[in-house]
Amino acid sequence: MQLNPIQLFDAESSTFTYILAAPGAVDAAIIDPVDRHFERDLAHLERLGLRLTHVFETHAHADHVTSAGRLRAHTGAKACAPSGCGIAPAEIQLQDGDRIGFADGEELAVIHTPGHTAGSMCYLWRGNLFSGDTLLIGGCGRTDFQGGSAGDLYDSVTGKLFTLDAATRVWPGHDYKGQSVSTIGWERAHNARLAGRERADFIALMAALDLPRPGLMDVAVPANRNLGLAHSV
Amino acid sequence: MQLNPIQLFDAESSTFTYILAAPGAVDAAIIDPVDRHFERDLAHLERLGLRLTHVFETHAHADHVTSAGRLRAHTGAKACAPSGCGIAPAEIQLQDGDRIGFADGEELAVIHTPGHTAGSMCYLWRGNLFSGDTLLIGGCGRTDFQGGSAGDLYDSVTGKLFTLDAATRVWPGHDYKGQSVSTIGWERAHNARLAGRERADFIALMAALDLPRPGLMDVAVPANRNLGLAHSV
Repeated sequence: MQLNPIQLFDAESSTFTYILAAPGAVDAAIIDPVDRHFERDLAHLERLGLRLTHVFETHAHADHVTSAGRLRAHTGAKACAPSGCGIAPAEIQLQDGDRIGFADGEELAVIHTPGHTAGSMCYLWRGNLFSGDTLLIGGCGRTDFQGGSAGDLYDSVTGKLFTLDAATRVWPGHDYKGQSVSTIGWERAHNARLAGRERADFIALMAALDLPRPGLMDVAVPANRNLGLAHSV
Repeated sequence: MQLNPIQLFDAESSTFTYILAAPGAVDAAIIDPVDRHFERDLAHLERLGLRLTHVFETHAHADHVTSAGRLRAHTGAKACAPSGCGIAPAEIQLQDGDRIGFADGEELAVIHTPGHTAGSMCYLWRGNLFSGDTLLIGGCGRTDFQGGSAGDLYDSVTGKLFTLDAATRVWPGHDYKGQSVSTIGWERAHNARLAGRERADFIALMAALDLPRPGLMDVAVPANRNLGLAHSV
């Protein structure tokens, strides 16, 4: 049965964090927690009576620092990270096709979606796709650093994500317009960058974006490769 | 079974809007939609394949204008408003204890909770309380206009809301700290204004707040009494 996650927002970096829990269950997972909201996120778990068992990262973020390491230390949750993202301290190094049980009967399916970064992954749970920076509502993540590749992103989205059931809800890693959720069916038909576009056109479009380097990149990426803990890995 | 709603946010007034839909259902309800997000909210309904049947207002808002009238005109949804809020054009004038069916088998229970305004109401659906400005996460709404009353708010919260099941999720009308959701159990034990406080203490605390008059009040309240449409009721 399709269940909505709990969606939390960081206004500074426009990042979404998600808490996943089944009705009546105590064990929960969190995806892409943000360091400055460590206390807020713990408070949500406490208020909801949830025990954190797994922390998932969709990739090594360049625009904010994760709280995965602090959450692990505080709750005993396992840190789960894409194997290709250089997040060495995560005890679960995820591979494409993995299925991770995080509570009684709950399972999260791992989909390797290179493109935004070489190691980026998306997660599927109960009809919900947590699409990180791979697929955004009406758009997609940039592809110009950390092994990013517009061709790879195109292949990941059109070959892996757009083949999911049309009703699959898409919960992105960011939104900059006050939007919360989309669906695979809508993105496949209407995504401004990817719907109905040829691969070569998409690569040209991404190459022409000429985006500034993220201000936090030199701090955030090394920090996130250490789960947000002190940078001396 | 407890299901999370879809939560949308207006950063300008820190207002939450909620879309309520059961898994697999087409018909949906919306609570407290914000005028400037009319297009955004329609886009969410379209993406999710939902048909709007009911628009609920928790009260006549003083800090933002509703899109209830425009949503009704665009979708054919019924406008549902607390009977004591002077929202005359709403075809369903809600009374305490009403139960409104809004989709196959879905029902929303109406709880009159005077205090923030005299007519304010909260709504209960599948273990979720939509608490408007009556109960906020760790706090409560102000009680100094539109028939507001600190004593009434105390009685509404302690007598009606805090008697709900502890696991009931509390989805507030606003949050100013990046928080999304709480529970009745947590608020009953920890709410900074209401937990363990005597009625007279609470009334004194609210009287001492000395809050400025909302800047939008003279525009928003008359507009909202007309479902956000042109003010000539």
